[in-house]
Amino acid sequence: MPEKIKAEELAKKQRQVSVSEFFVRNRHLLGFDNPVRALLMTVKELVDNSLDACDEMRVLPEIVIELKQLSESRYIVTVEDNGPGIVKVQIPNVFGKLLYGSKFAKLSQTRGKQGLGVSVSVLYSQLTTGKAIKVISKISSKKPAHYYELKINTQKNEPEILKEKEMDWKKDHGTKVEIELEAKYQKGRQSVDEYVKQTAIVNPHVNITYITPTKEKIFYKRVVEELPREPREIKPHPYGIELGTLMQMLISTTANTLTGFLQNDFSRIGSTTAKEMYNLASLNGKSNPRKLDATSAEKLFNAMQKVKVIAPPTDCLSPIGETLLIKGLKNEIKADFYAATSRSPTVYRGFPYIIEAAVAYGGELGKEETTRLLRLANRVPLLYQQGACAITEATTDTNWKPYGLQQSGSNMPIGPAIILLHIASVWVPFTNEAKDAVAHYPEIIKEIKLALQDVGRQLGSYIRKTVKVKEQQERVGLFEKYIPELSSSLYNLTGVNKGKIEASLQKILKKSLKNLLENGEKAK
Amino acid sequence: MPEKIKAEELAKKQRQVSVSEFFVRNRHLLGFDNPVRALLMTVKELVDNSLDACDEMRVLPEIVIELKQLSESRYIVTVEDNGPGIVKVQIPNVFGKLLYGSKFAKLSQTRGKQGLGVSVSVLYSQLTTGKAIKVISKISSKKPAHYYELKINTQKNEPEILKEKEMDWKKDHGTKVEIELEAKYQKGRQSVDEYVKQTAIVNPHVNITYITPTKEKIFYKRVVEELPREPREIKPHPYGIELGTLMQMLISTTANTLTGFLQNDFSRIGSTTAKEMYNLASLNGKSNPRKLDATSAEKLFNAMQKVKVIAPPTDCLSPIGETLLIKGLKNEIKADFYAATSRSPTVYRGFPYIIEAAVAYGGELGKEETTRLLRLANRVPLLYQQGACAITEATTDTNWKPYGLQQSGSNMPIGPAIILLHIASVWVPFTNEAKDAVAHYPEIIKEIKLALQDVGRQLGSYIRKTVKVKEQQERVGLFEKYIPELSSSLYNLTGVNKGKIEASLQKILKKSLKNLLENGEKAK
Repeated sequence: MPEKIKAEELAKKQRQVSVSEFFVRNRHLLGFDNPVRALLMTVKELVDNSLDACDEMRVLPEIVIELKQLSESRYIVTVEDNGPGIVKVQIPNVFGKLLYGSKFAKLSQTRGKQGLGVSVSVLYSQLTTGKAIKVISKISSKKPAHYYELKINTQKNEPEILKEKEMDWKKDHGTKVEIELEAKYQKGRQSVDEYVKQTAIVNPHVNITYITPTKEKIFYKRVVEELPREPREIKPHPYGIELGTLMQMLISTTANTLTGFLQNDFSRIGSTTAKEMYNLASLNGKSNPRKLDATSAEKLFNAMQKVKVIAPPTDCLSPIGETLLIKGLKNEIKADFYAATSRSPTVYRGFPYIIEAAVAYGGELGKEETTRLLRLANRVPLLYQQGACAITEATTDTNWKPYGLQQSGSNMPIGPAIILLHIASVWVPFTNEAKDAVAHYPEIIKEIKLALQDVGRQLGSYIRKTVKVKEQQERVGLFEKYIPELSSSLYNLTGVNKGKIEASLQKILKKSLKNLLENGEKAK
Repeated sequence: MPEKIKAEELAKKQRQVSVSEFFVRNRHLLGFDNPVRALLMTVKELVDNSLDACDEMRVLPEIVIELKQLSESRYIVTVEDNGPGIVKVQIPNVFGKLLYGSKFAKLSQTRGKQGLGVSVSVLYSQLTTGKAIKVISKISSKKPAHYYELKINTQKNEPEILKEKEMDWKKDHGTKVEIELEAKYQKGRQSVDEYVKQTAIVNPHVNITYITPTKEKIFYKRVVEELPREPREIKPHPYGIELGTLMQMLISTTANTLTGFLQNDFSRIGSTTAKEMYNLASLNGKSNPRKLDATSAEKLFNAMQKVKVIAPPTDCLSPIGETLLIKGLKNEIKADFYAATSRSPTVYRGFPYIIEAAVAYGGELGKEETTRLLRLANRVPLLYQQGACAITEATTDTNWKPYGLQQSGSNMPIGPAIILLHIASVWVPFTNEAKDAVAHYPEIIKEIKLALQDVGRQLGSYIRKTVKVKEQQERVGLFEKYIPELSSSLYNLTGVNKGKIEASLQKILKKSLKNLLENGEKAK
């Protein structure tokens, strides 16, 4: 009997799995694990892309979102923007290929990053409905619009074009995408409604028209006519890379000398710092970086971590700013008091980031309810996985009692308040691909706490003042009650006309009441 | 000025990202987020693969794991097995290519699944150390062993061979892998030590030699000489697929008729059921399945969900079994009482699964500590993300008070116990790629609770009995104390010799004590 070798039998089954197949099976990793969430993710990916595109073109975004219900569990999501559009040849790739995009390795503050989001929506759509998606895109008033019907060939991770044509389209430039999918529309804190509302709050330069499945048309009007600062792309900082990345960079650099490589391919390395680095690594600054062996690369890496380098530039970040945070909140949430803070930029692992916080208090907000926390990253609302997020940890770890809210242990505070927390970074460290929660870097948690303490102090001072006013008002009320009695007593003692005494006491009271109310107003 | 079209400028930056680049950036998604966890993940991926390979070859596994410390943060992990080995041409692909493997779409109970694990360890190794991994593999006593030094070209997701040669190797067949990486070795509940120990408990047919960084050699000897039942591969069940998957299957089927497709490509569809399905969908059973249009496919899909089909076969599962669960536990945990249950197989979304539970109580286990929960899936210990796991939810939701443990609210019970919970399935629904936690399917949680209640009842009955015995022993002790006094009184009353009375009372007591102790033994 010839020997049957098990390994040879097993080898026949081995094959490459395409990234599309992988994500079809593991789509829950990207947030597509149930029909409610799939609807939100699809809207989110489309809107995030539209806003990124408008930002890149420096145009004030006009976004139209429509949810159309076809049957109990079938919806069509349509998102239309006035962005730069997509050139014809790229349309199939952008929507019909996973891990295809322009923002992957780029160190800049964008909403999307991995070139995964929308194409996973397309996968989910064809998996649950078998339908193709429809795209119209136009890049200039002088060019025609292009219409595509697309699917993804999951075995090859390649787009499959079912229909393509030129067509007329009313606008000069922009993109409109229509995706049919199995979905469920719900109201509540993790709903599309909530996502759109929070998006409007932290993107106060955006006009959004949102048509709900019940054909209600909600218009979020921009509160500022200026675009946010353009987020610049930056080069990696020596403290933010890893040995393997450095080796990769050495191979693919266009610099001809080691010193040139260090100065051109990193931020914050000048000739002096470069010299310090290659000297410390006992390397020659004139050597060819592409020819460095593994041992030398490791020496260089270690030297780069030891030499003092100033922090990366932070003008690559585009924070919302205190004024616009308050404007955005005021527009959507009716409260008595608003405060915001935008901290100075700082750095984790070589990546710059900024923490911003805001708070709204009183008004229509529920008095005895748990304070709501709005978490945002690069102007995108995070609606799932609150418990797993560093923002949540920092919020519950903050002691809110001195700031006038109730709190038991390390729970969310209780009171008529909304807390908003925004992290803007060239690389937000998410805990998962669905980008629901920020990872627990101690330095980030510390920054978040400082921002929360800042708005907390403002809130506390407001609450103390209004509480003081309220108490004094109560005292005034009590005094008013006793005026007739007091007047009688004073008349008995002094013989002065009772009516006159009463009138003069009322006058004193009114004056102090006026002062009180004025102080109250100032506190707002 | 010629119009500068933004879209054309943006198009230049668009490119395909390789799956390796994606996971280098997102390696935290696979559990490689810090040096402690990276060490565990690397050991785990290698050992899981070794055990799967030995199972496939039907050979009793002999695994050697060694951790060697090179410097404070640098380790070498070596894992050697006596599995079938890997054929020469496949060695580079298995270790140097992400998403490459034999188990991806296969519906069978295996530890690995996605062809990601080991290659991500390789990526992490080269990212943090710049070093290649070393592999020796041999597939037969009549063939030479092959030695490789490998890296991954991340931009292409292709293996890079640095060295390859034939060599002599002492064993007939097997694989040995050596990976150098930045790592940190720690003791504790999420350690390599713990992973190895739990692996030995739930794989009682395995010999493991584990050499720790301090050169301590721990040997886990198998407690059974038989291999577990071979997990069979099954076909998909009509209730477990989605429309998109069905459409894919229709395109790639080898059947020539619709009825043939239904009967051959699914489990539990015979000719009658097939007929019922295509009739309900108003389709012709003789039509070519590859030519079905989207509308017909959707009709077929809906019909398949409506027709009653018996549950999938469950002999594809390989549970540990009650006897071996207890043997495995006894071998590693010194307790007074052990109980186990292996439930009947059941089904979620067309996928068969089995829940097994075991409990150890008393002995060396801490009396006032929180009860430990060992979570396992397809015989692999889950050491991270306990809070996010359905097994944890089911355990804390179970009321342990009637079973003799303390518990406050929905917390983990308190008492000298260890609870072990194993889910075996052809498709375990993990919440993340690092495979740390089981997703919250209500039907799975219900099954877990039933298993816990079963071992809980056994535990409760043991505790009640031993508590009863203890109480009676206390009563006996008390009685013994009063014997001299009682004898005096009886002597006074009856005039019978005091010594005789005492002796006879002692005799009665001894007899009842004997009974008590015998009952106590039975309860164990």
